[in-house]
Amino acid sequence: MSTAASIGAPAGEGALAVICGGGSLPFAVAGAAARRGRRVVLFALRGWADPQRVAGYRHHWIRLGQVGRFLRLAREEGCHDVVAIGSVVRPTLWQLRPDLGMIPLLPRVARMFQGGDAHLLAGVAGLLEEQGFRLVAAQELAPDILMPEGTIGMRQPSEAARRDIAHGLALLRATGPFDVGQAVVVAEHNILAVEAAEGTDQMLARVAELRRSGRIGVAGGVLVKAPKPGQDRRIDLPTIGPQTIEGAARAGLDGLALMAGGSFVAEPESIATLADRAKLFVFGVRDEAPGR
Amino acid sequence: MSTAASIGAPAGEGALAVICGGGSLPFAVAGAAARRGRRVVLFALRGWADPQRVAGYRHHWIRLGQVGRFLRLAREEGCHDVVAIGSVVRPTLWQLRPDLGMIPLLPRVARMFQGGDAHLLAGVAGLLEEQGFRLVAAQELAPDILMPEGTIGMRQPSEAARRDIAHGLALLRATGPFDVGQAVVVAEHNILAVEAAEGTDQMLARVAELRRSGRIGVAGGVLVKAPKPGQDRRIDLPTIGPQTIEGAARAGLDGLALMAGGSFVAEPESIATLADRAKLFVFGVRDEAPGR
Repeated sequence: MSTAASIGAPAGEGALAVICGGGSLPFAVAGAAARRGRRVVLFALRGWADPQRVAGYRHHWIRLGQVGRFLRLAREEGCHDVVAIGSVVRPTLWQLRPDLGMIPLLPRVARMFQGGDAHLLAGVAGLLEEQGFRLVAAQELAPDILMPEGTIGMRQPSEAARRDIAHGLALLRATGPFDVGQAVVVAEHNILAVEAAEGTDQMLARVAELRRSGRIGVAGGVLVKAPKPGQDRRIDLPTIGPQTIEGAARAGLDGLALMAGGSFVAEPESIATLADRAKLFVFGVRDEAPGR
Repeated sequence: MSTAASIGAPAGEGALAVICGGGSLPFAVAGAAARRGRRVVLFALRGWADPQRVAGYRHHWIRLGQVGRFLRLAREEGCHDVVAIGSVVRPTLWQLRPDLGMIPLLPRVARMFQGGDAHLLAGVAGLLEEQGFRLVAAQELAPDILMPEGTIGMRQPSEAARRDIAHGLALLRATGPFDVGQAVVVAEHNILAVEAAEGTDQMLARVAELRRSGRIGVAGGVLVKAPKPGQDRRIDLPTIGPQTIEGAARAGLDGLALMAGGSFVAEPESIATLADRAKLFVFGVRDEAPGR
C-alpha cells in the first residue's frame, strides 16, 4: 500500500474503487473521476496494471484471487462504487490462488467458471453487489473512452468494406447467445477468422500467418468487433488499442469496425497516427440492431 | 498419363471420373466403384494426390486450374459421372494458373471465389453440370466412408461431453448461413475455438497451444464437426482422419463428435486404434435438427 495524489474530498457518491488491469484505460477512468473531485483508490492487479502509472494514485496491489483482501480494503477506504477496467487474460480457477476471504465464495466462483467470459463476469458483478458494492460502468465515469460514431484518423471504409462490416456484425449477432468471442475478420464476404478463447491479437496474428502461407485467396478485409447481445456493459466491452492497429496492419486488413458507444478505445491519438500511417480506417458503426 | 489396373468393363453408368485430392478417401471411393465393375479414371491433383496409390489406377495428373484439360480428357475417357474427393486446401484464384480451356470460364470462376467454401464448391458443381457431366456424391459410391451412428473405438462420451456436443452443434447451426467453418471446440460449455479459414488441424493446434500457455481454464473438451445447413453434400463433407485424432489428443480433448451420415471417416481402423490409445471417444451423432 502507498499513497499519492488522491485528489479532492469525497463527493456525494463517496470514494471510487478502480480495479485496475493492463493498458491505459484504467488511468483514463481514474483521471476523469479524480478531475470531477471524486476520491479514487486503485486496486492494481499484480502482473497487469502498470506500476509507474499506478504510483500516481492512492492504491493497493492485489492478486486476482484476493477477493477477501479487496473486500476488506475497499470497505476500509470507504468505497461504495467499484469500476473494473483494463486488460486481464481470463485466469484459470487455479491461477486465482484464493485468499481466506474468498474461500466461503469458492463453490460459487467455481460455478462462475463453467461458462464463457460473459457468464464469468456477470458472476463477478453479482458477487460484488451482494457484498454491498455498486458496480459502475467505466464509460459512465469517462464517456470519452467510448468509440465515437464515424472514423478515427483519416481513412473511410469503402462500400465493399461496409458490406463486409454488415456481414461480420450479422455473424456476431448470430453467435452472441453462445458467449463466444466478440470479433471476426471478414474479407470480400468471406469469414476468415472467428475469435474465441484466443483473443483478438492472436486472431489477427493467425490471419497474417494464413496470408503469408497463401491460404487466404482474397485481399484486404475488416476486423469487426461488437459487444455480445445482452452483455452487461458495465464490464468487458470490446476494446482496441495501438496494438490492435498494428495487428490489423500485419494481417493485411483495410480497417477496423467497432460499435459506436459499445467499445472502448485506448489512446485514440496513437491509434489515429498508426492507422493513418498504415492506411487503415477505424470506423465506429451506429448501433442499429434491436436489443443490442 | 499412364495406365494400370482399371478393373472391369463399363457398367451401365459409364466410366467414372474421380477428381482425386489428398488422403486415402479417393482410393476408398475408386476401389468401391471398381469392385462393382465400374471403369474408373483418376484425375489426380498434383501436389495433393498420393502418387503411389494413384499408380494403381488408370489416371491423369492435373493441376487445380486445368479445367480445360480435365474437361477434354474426361470426355475422351467417356466419363459422364464425376466425383470429387480428398483434401485440397482452398487455392487462391492466382494459384489456379488457369489453362486455355478455363479462360472463357474465368469471369464466372472469379465470382465463385467471392464467398466462402460452400459458395465456391457450389459454383464448381454447377459448372460441371453445365458442361454435361453429372456430379455424384462420394458416399453414394462408397457408403462405408460415412461416419456411422455411435462410436468408433471403445470410449463413450460422458453426459457432460454430450451436453458440450449439443452446444457445439447449436453454434454450428447458428453460423451455418455465414459459410464459416464446420468445426468448433467446446469444453464445459465454453466455446474454446471456432474454425474458419485455418481448417480443423490448425484450430486443434491452437487449442493445444492455448492450453500449454494456461489460457484455457477448463479441462477436456470435444471437437464437434458438422456439415453446414443446406450444404451440397456431393462435395466437401467434413472429414476426419488419423491426424484429426492426433490433433485432438494434443489439444487435451476428451473426444470428437461428427454427424452420423454427414461426415467422412478416412482409415477408420487406424482411427479406432489411435483413439483407444489416446483415450478419446469418436462419436457419430444422429442428425436430429430439421432441414440439415
